[in-house]
Amino acid sequence: MDQDSGNVDLEIIVKGTPEGHKQELRLWLRMLSTTNLISQEVRRRLRAQFGMTLPQFDLMAQLDREPAGLRLGELSKRMMVTNGNVTGLVDRLESDGLISRESADGDRRVTVARLTAKGRDTFAAMAHAHEGWLSDMLADVEPRLVAATLRDLGVVKASVAAHLTAGED
Amino acid sequence: MDQDSGNVDLEIIVKGTPEGHKQELRLWLRMLSTTNLISQEVRRRLRAQFGMTLPQFDLMAQLDREPAGLRLGELSKRMMVTNGNVTGLVDRLESDGLISRESADGDRRVTVARLTAKGRDTFAAMAHAHEGWLSDMLADVEPRLVAATLRDLGVVKASVAAHLTAGED
Repeated sequence: MDQDSGNVDLEIIVKGTPEGHKQELRLWLRMLSTTNLISQEVRRRLRAQFGMTLPQFDLMAQLDREPAGLRLGELSKRMMVTNGNVTGLVDRLESDGLISRESADGDRRVTVARLTAKGRDTFAAMAHAHEGWLSDMLADVEPRLVAATLRDLGVVKASVAAHLTAGED
Repeated sequence: MDQDSGNVDLEIIVKGTPEGHKQELRLWLRMLSTTNLISQEVRRRLRAQFGMTLPQFDLMAQLDREPAGLRLGELSKRMMVTNGNVTGLVDRLESDGLISRESADGDRRVTVARLTAKGRDTFAAMAHAHEGWLSDMLADVEPRLVAATLRDLGVVKASVAAHLTAGED
């Protein structure tokens, strides 16, 4: 089952709380439920239009930014959207001809994963579509409001980043 | 590895894109990276302060809203934040004395999971702490800005909800 699916909305947690109370909690639940909705839709469209999973898309996005390739260990660290078995993902994408395993430039003992030409073309098409899906989903939000939300979330993100209990991990 | 951890920020994807371009994509990446940061921190604090995982917290949140208890199948559908093996979660929380398996009111043939008194107390303490963590993390965001972001994200969420390709799942 996907996140936030079914009939239940996360924000039900603050239902019954007086208006104007628990605003930070409300904001978090709204961010989380909105993120889950978008993430679900992106997964659905990746699958329907490209037969691709989000971890596969994520992995290809990492490699697209590194023409020289990445070692599997480094690739694993950089996977941002999703966790997942990097070796399994690489095997699958390699068998589809989208990535290759090669020796690193300058060090033949090191093996790196790289996008193939077909992989680069496929990723470009997916990235272009992905950008369009976001435009679709946010079609009812005026550009002015998109810009304002982007700016406000910048303040939210900076506040969160400044209050992490790093090192306790 | 947790989501969005390490040194890489998701927003690097739009780095190099001219200011004002791809605003919807930027907004999505900012929402996702902020959500990941908060989610990571909530996991970290749940573990450090309560020895609890996010799926466990999520499961208890569902039961807290249903004093009459929930069947495991229904519970599984309602898990919002995380997927996960509901049976394994229930076994673990039951062995910690936080939930019990009982016959449903009115139908002895049906088994439901319910919070125990200890489970209710534990969940109340966690929910209270969780609310405080959100206030901490958003401490640098003025109340006026919290309210504005909450309102703007309401517009974003409504737009997304209106543009889902339901039924293709």
